[in-house]
Amino acid sequence: MTKKKIGILGASGYTGSDAVRLLARHPNAEITALTANTHAGKTMSEVFPHFFMLDLPRLVEWEKVDWTRLDAVFCGLPHGTTQEIIAAVLKANPGIKILDMSADFRLRDEDSYAQWYGHEHRAFELQGEAVYGLTELYREKITAARLVACPGCYPTAVLLALVPLAKAKLIDVDDIIIDAKSGVTGAGRGLKQNTLFSEAGEGLSPYSIGSHRHSAEIEQEIGVAAGSAVTVNFTPHLIPMARGEFCTSYVKLNGATPDDLRAELEKAYANEPFAHVTKKGVLPQTQNVRGSNYVQIGVVADRIKNRAIVLSTLDNLVKGSAGQAIQNMNLMFGLPETTGLEQIALFP
Amino acid sequence: MTKKKIGILGASGYTGSDAVRLLARHPNAEITALTANTHAGKTMSEVFPHFFMLDLPRLVEWEKVDWTRLDAVFCGLPHGTTQEIIAAVLKANPGIKILDMSADFRLRDEDSYAQWYGHEHRAFELQGEAVYGLTELYREKITAARLVACPGCYPTAVLLALVPLAKAKLIDVDDIIIDAKSGVTGAGRGLKQNTLFSEAGEGLSPYSIGSHRHSAEIEQEIGVAAGSAVTVNFTPHLIPMARGEFCTSYVKLNGATPDDLRAELEKAYANEPFAHVTKKGVLPQTQNVRGSNYVQIGVVADRIKNRAIVLSTLDNLVKGSAGQAIQNMNLMFGLPETTGLEQIALFP
Amino acid sequence: MTKKKIGILGASGYTGSDAVRLLARHPNAEITALTANTHAGKTMSEVFPHFFMLDLPRLVEWEKVDWTRLDAVFCGLPHGTTQEIIAAVLKANPGIKILDMSADFRLRDEDSYAQWYGHEHRAFELQGEAVYGLTELYREKITAARLVACPGCYPTAVLLALVPLAKAKLIDVDDIIIDAKSGVTGAGRGLKQNTLFSEAGEGLSPYSIGSHRHSAEIEQEIGVAAGSAVTVNFTPHLIPMARGEFCTSYVKLNGATPDDLRAELEKAYANEPFAHVTKKGVLPQTQNVRGSNYVQIGVVADRIKNRAIVLSTLDNLVKGSAGQAIQNMNLMFGLPETTGLEQIALFP
Amino acid sequence: MTKKKIGILGASGYTGSDAVRLLARHPNAEITALTANTHAGKTMSEVFPHFFMLDLPRLVEWEKVDWTRLDAVFCGLPHGTTQEIIAAVLKANPGIKILDMSADFRLRDEDSYAQWYGHEHRAFELQGEAVYGLTELYREKITAARLVACPGCYPTAVLLALVPLAKAKLIDVDDIIIDAKSGVTGAGRGLKQNTLFSEAGEGLSPYSIGSHRHSAEIEQEIGVAAGSAVTVNFTPHLIPMARGEFCTSYVKLNGATPDDLRAELEKAYANEPFAHVTKKGVLPQTQNVRGSNYVQIGVVADRIKNRAIVLSTLDNLVKGSAGQAIQNMNLMFGLPETTGLEQIALFP
Repeated sequence: MTKKKIGILGASGYTGSDAVRLLARHPNAEITALTANTHAGKTMSEVFPHFFMLDLPRLVEWEKVDWTRLDAVFCGLPHGTTQEIIAAVLKANPGIKILDMSADFRLRDEDSYAQWYGHEHRAFELQGEAVYGLTELYREKITAARLVACPGCYPTAVLLALVPLAKAKLIDVDDIIIDAKSGVTGAGRGLKQNTLFSEAGEGLSPYSIGSHRHSAEIEQEIGVAAGSAVTVNFTPHLIPMARGEFCTSYVKLNGATPDDLRAELEKAYANEPFAHVTKKGVLPQTQNVRGSNYVQIGVVADRIKNRAIVLSTLDNLVKGSAGQAIQNMNLMFGLPETTGLEQIALFP
Repeated sequence: MTKKKIGILGASGYTGSDAVRLLARHPNAEITALTANTHAGKTMSEVFPHFFMLDLPRLVEWEKVDWTRLDAVFCGLPHGTTQEIIAAVLKANPGIKILDMSADFRLRDEDSYAQWYGHEHRAFELQGEAVYGLTELYREKITAARLVACPGCYPTAVLLALVPLAKAKLIDVDDIIIDAKSGVTGAGRGLKQNTLFSEAGEGLSPYSIGSHRHSAEIEQEIGVAAGSAVTVNFTPHLIPMARGEFCTSYVKLNGATPDDLRAELEKAYANEPFAHVTKKGVLPQTQNVRGSNYVQIGVVADRIKNRAIVLSTLDNLVKGSAGQAIQNMNLMFGLPETTGLEQIALFP
Repeated sequence: MTKKKIGILGASGYTGSDAVRLLARHPNAEITALTANTHAGKTMSEVFPHFFMLDLPRLVEWEKVDWTRLDAVFCGLPHGTTQEIIAAVLKANPGIKILDMSADFRLRDEDSYAQWYGHEHRAFELQGEAVYGLTELYREKITAARLVACPGCYPTAVLLALVPLAKAKLIDVDDIIIDAKSGVTGAGRGLKQNTLFSEAGEGLSPYSIGSHRHSAEIEQEIGVAAGSAVTVNFTPHLIPMARGEFCTSYVKLNGATPDDLRAELEKAYANEPFAHVTKKGVLPQTQNVRGSNYVQIGVVADRIKNRAIVLSTLDNLVKGSAGQAIQNMNLMFGLPETTGLEQIALFP
Repeated sequence: MTKKKIGILGASGYTGSDAVRLLARHPNAEITALTANTHAGKTMSEVFPHFFMLDLPRLVEWEKVDWTRLDAVFCGLPHGTTQEIIAAVLKANPGIKILDMSADFRLRDEDSYAQWYGHEHRAFELQGEAVYGLTELYREKITAARLVACPGCYPTAVLLALVPLAKAKLIDVDDIIIDAKSGVTGAGRGLKQNTLFSEAGEGLSPYSIGSHRHSAEIEQEIGVAAGSAVTVNFTPHLIPMARGEFCTSYVKLNGATPDDLRAELEKAYANEPFAHVTKKGVLPQTQNVRGSNYVQIGVVADRIKNRAIVLSTLDNLVKGSAGQAIQNMNLMFGLPETTGLEQIALFP
């Protein structure tokens, strides 16, 4: 098979670089364009020295790329900037596959987008064809899509844990509390005081309670599963680790037992290569998925009657971003879904 | 004022050593006995080299101490071993003040103790006089006590956040979910695989869900405040930091608003030197209390109607253990409550 | 004693904030002015939330301070900006005491300053009266000084280890190799990519080899001790910890033994409150001094004949900066040298 | 090609588990036996839960393995225990390939072994055929070998940096100072107080100065390169990171320049897949090799005349252990040397 020619928009950020890390060793991919407008002209290893052993194209401005020569594009740009660029890319090459790792095409509702992101959608004509790229839930649509809006890291962790339960009406979707914990890479490579080593290290701080934009995606998709509008509690905390995300979801049971929940999840993911349900008594932990595309989900009984706790964990840059994007790309190109993604967690 | 003569039982553990750290600079205390049966004969700086600048008594077996010459004893022994030793100490010197940092005298109910700790209480005759040492809640009784059972680190954080709310009937005590996060010192200095640097670092893992013994203390004291038996959800997670504890408590409101909760907490702690309620919009974080005896408590609105989130944080070895014990000792000796405890958090 | 009125220039940086942390609990100090030009108008706890319990003056621009009402000023400004400001402060109040924690008055030679710092000295008329503030070496001059140039963190660690040996001619000053390791706070609070948690965490990188400006101070002071110009190897590395500095100095012996070196250091620091020499066989470690004003120094034999290894460690923000400045202030005001500085290391 | 059947002795330690991590995804390997005598009977994912997605053989006692059915064995046992077991394995199956990751066959001299390891060699009859498994230096011999003694992590980093320079007589081998820094996995998975998170985190401590056993290997191999017995200074420090090793070697030049050193190294490694020499001005850092089999080496001028600094870094569990063992296995089976080893560093 000839290798697919891949471009990466926003290669100087962490999601872009993790796409490079994985695609550089993907047997069916060839990285042929890397963009980073503020670093244009530099080599990738000037920006990310751990790529010293790779022979990669130099970073260029996105306007300089000949999109007609590419088969697929990964987009790791900040939200808000992506919509117009993707519209331009698709105009230049309507047959190209787009793996958008930004938030720009995740919300189907135009008003909801405007409300959560603070500005009107800039390419809403494309939103209709965008498929929400949570592979396990939308595999068929992704396979046929041109534009895939890969979910946020938190939504991936939460939705894989809760959607099957909401669909099966095992839980009360009006009483979902999600206590979420993220490593610092979740905040990106931009320079912020609170992500300095000396500030984030050896400490824990909550942030964006009640206002984190990933709430919107979570509510959209649980709403789809439940067949009704949903409001969830989503409370994120910053944890002193680089990678990893852990969601502790507190749910009210509709007559079901914790074992019923586990059974439902096991059924849903029985044939999934990356979504794993732990055995009764085994607790997921971020260490088990660091650097990998795997998700671990567990169910624990609550001492409060008629309640359960659902635990889920993933690597925010892999299954939570670049890895899932590649998983989707594999589907879109008819490749085995696991190609290039079977790295085991780097532990310790 | 002559200095009070202080002994520390279990000086080779972390709560013992933090008591030494603080008492060595306390203007009214003189450390005159240190016990550690497995390290008897060693100097303290062999066991904790950061005490190299102090002139401390050598570690001895607890049986070798002449308790009649001491004014107070801090006990940092593991639970289960403490009851008989404290009984022996009090027999040798009935006038001595006991600051127990273990779990041995925290539960007032004999059956509850047996159920959570797996063995019968070995000095239940003393339980009746033991005062639960949460200073802000039991100040008067502590002042008059001989035996103070200092609370666990998690209970201190949770109870300071929730007891005033339960007392004022602002929250529904049958629907309390406590997502708790602790630094690794919470597990003590014993050798365990999961607290090795290479295992706990750069990762997050839940533990003891539904079975953590601190649940019992939390339920006992919220029960007292509410006037009825209570079962809470208490879900602890291990965080890659040495010190610090953060509790995110999800509560259902009895018609109150989040602002009402904050106002109630502000009223409760208006004159407290160590318990601080953050202003609306300011979130507590462990960095603000590391190494100090302060507690920070905050209230945030929930997007789910009729719910709120109460955040609380402290240093598990200080306000969560040795610091609160010293705060209690100050009361018991008629000293200003803040003596020796006003260190500001070590940040960064 | 009435409290001395203290101002802090550059209170929004880490050395400034550590000065606040310590001075706020200093029995003879009252913080009456805090400057931070880019944060003017804010409260200190907006900039450093761990000061929530303190009642501090609001941050102002340095030009707004009435210097005639202050007894002493600590300066935590970046190098290069300090000279003119200090000149202005001294003009406004010639009797004020200046504790400069920047690099602006450390080098006695005008050309050397220009060479290492890339611009001409802007207040060289003051350099003559500036005393190099390494307390243990210049105590008498500091006591009498108006302007004290507190040394850099690395020079403090290195010079306390090597100056007594150079003075006593026990080592060959032409063959000194200093492998230095620093925590990330050494790089300050400014936003830099390499000090982000995700970049500096879980990794080690050398930096500024052969070009670190602290080399100049080290060479100046070892030169004074040896009575001749000296060039040293100084190779710093960034370590994933917030505080702490460790210097491993490889020295050639002039006929002396490692035990002779230790004896010389013990003699030099026999009466020093903060400089401690470890016993034979005990190795210094940063954990022993974290958050404290203590320095630990050790000597180890080398397997290579006629060589030894001298180890030294301190907290870069305390004995390496704000703590030593306060130690000097105590001398300048005739206070006991240890006042407000006896905190023991925060371990763990 | 049929897959080679692989056994791993000591699969419950970190070098064993990293061998599993890599071999499980190696296209020509099949793990068919895992031993761990203290954990016999458990599944591998009970011991290392990050292997939850693999279908691995259950852990057994080494005595239970049928060695005749295996093609190769990796040995991750502690030193001292390995010699007799390997002798037994080879007796059972003389055609098997042994990749020993322990220290038991690294020293060619029987007396040197006894001196450094404190007991007599227990299978010295095999030492003669053991090849020192530093791939880049002994490739031909390894290809033909049956028993390969893979080097320690520190020796790999140091020898790749210095052997070409010693061979070319560019440096004075009597004046080599190696300041070495290691992550905590270097100490293994055994329970030790100094490798607890709360002890090793946020701190730096030197250890085993003058007595670290890796000195012996370093001296043996630099001696071979130089053609004379050599004594080096080797000073290790424990760094708060899980993986990664960094060696800063201070060398005296025999008339050469730092550029000559870099040129010699570039020549030596021009065709090497895993050993990379950085360009002038680029400094190696552990982040660039974390989780990978790559080594980065750099040369920097020293401000002291006639001296240079050679920097080298690798992942102690990969190129420093399991990765290099697999690299050797590839050679021994006639596979492309890089098979299964091209993972890029996990950064951030």
